[in-house]
Amino acid sequence: MERRSILKKVLASVAGISVFGLANAAPVQNEEKEVNNVTEYQDVPLFSGSTKLGNMVFVAGKGAHVEPFEIKAHTEIVLKELESELKKAGSSMEKVLKVNVYLNDIADYKGMNEVYKGRFGKKPPVRTTVAVAKGGVPGDSLVEMDCIAYI
Amino acid sequence: MERRSILKKVLASVAGISVFGLANAAPVQNEEKEVNNVTEYQDVPLFSGSTKLGNMVFVAGKGAHVEPFEIKAHTEIVLKELESELKKAGSSMEKVLKVNVYLNDIADYKGMNEVYKGRFGKKPPVRTTVAVAKGGVPGDSLVEMDCIAYI
Amino acid sequence: MERRSILKKVLASVAGISVFGLANAAPVQNEEKEVNNVTEYQDVPLFSGSTKLGNMVFVAGKGAHVEPFEIKAHTEIVLKELESELKKAGSSMEKVLKVNVYLNDIADYKGMNEVYKGRFGKKPPVRTTVAVAKGGVPGDSLVEMDCIAYI
Repeated sequence: MERRSILKKVLASVAGISVFGLANAAPVQNEEKEVNNVTEYQDVPLFSGSTKLGNMVFVAGKGAHVEPFEIKAHTEIVLKELESELKKAGSSMEKVLKVNVYLNDIADYKGMNEVYKGRFGKKPPVRTTVAVAKGGVPGDSLVEMDCIAYI
Repeated sequence: MERRSILKKVLASVAGISVFGLANAAPVQNEEKEVNNVTEYQDVPLFSGSTKLGNMVFVAGKGAHVEPFEIKAHTEIVLKELESELKKAGSSMEKVLKVNVYLNDIADYKGMNEVYKGRFGKKPPVRTTVAVAKGGVPGDSLVEMDCIAYI
Repeated sequence: MERRSILKKVLASVAGISVFGLANAAPVQNEEKEVNNVTEYQDVPLFSGSTKLGNMVFVAGKGAHVEPFEIKAHTEIVLKELESELKKAGSSMEKVLKVNVYLNDIADYKGMNEVYKGRFGKKPPVRTTVAVAKGGVPGDSLVEMDCIAYI
């Protein structure tokens, strides 16, 4: 093997390792986001169900829009919607880093907690909970949640 | 070329590649955030218009504080404010990952959507929308938005 | 030194550099989040005080639940809670990228600002402030804040 060949081969290896390394690191410049479940409004893209850049995943605010209009039922629906989006993006409830909970009524705080507890595994995400205006969650949902996760 | 020289040269190349690679990967430890448009309060820094770490960009909540106090006009102003901050930070509307929308009144949901749709390109960010307290957006704005984006 | 040895040694160095580099870059795929201060509800994990992935840190919404029920006192408590979580996670107030402030009453905006200003250093994070429902912050706190930071 010639020295020049060694140099070439080693640099190729280096490039290979670096590319592999960088594929794992995220987010990476010049990388483009991916999106899932685009919702349109008047035939124009409005928002996505999830966006992904590198190994970071952002899930849209999810509400419940069906009967019964009761906090435990709505919390259950919302958590399942989050889980569905997470799985579709290659993540999971256990990989959620941050959740925001918007309640229609602060009186529903306990009911929400009873369904919410344990749903994100033994190392749960951080959470911020507030009650917004009465009727302030779109579609008359009693609760809305979004999250930031990883893959 | 001596073997020792090859080693040196290759390692230098490796270092170069790694540094280049790491410059692209973000966020990176020991890196310091950058900020734009610092707002002061009583001559002391209060908040920034945007912060940047690696290729992640965070934009401050933007409101509209001028007439007409009408949702479409305010949505237009807020979206332009977001775009201005994004561009200043080297990002764009198309590179937004997550938007939070805070309405003064849930009745403005449709009017906001009509101006909002399509503004972030064909792969729109996730979005979470809630109506807060009446008058709950600082400066009497009818809507406030913030976002997380990348470069 | 044989050529093969050079190759081995250089590749080892490359691997070393890459691993070091990747250890610094974050978030990294296959990496698992860390959590601090897990709060349980009915003996089941509910949420964490902070989560960490790579060099990104997410801090839970913090409120103040003691007298005096006055905005400056509550803001002071909340900021100290944030700082405590940040330090525990290896971060600091100066390394915060984004803060969300949820007020119980928009009339407390100025009082909050007077305590808040300057607390995150000369390059402050972005901020989004809204007033939620009266009594909408859990535990009757007059203000709740969460943040995203780095290490």
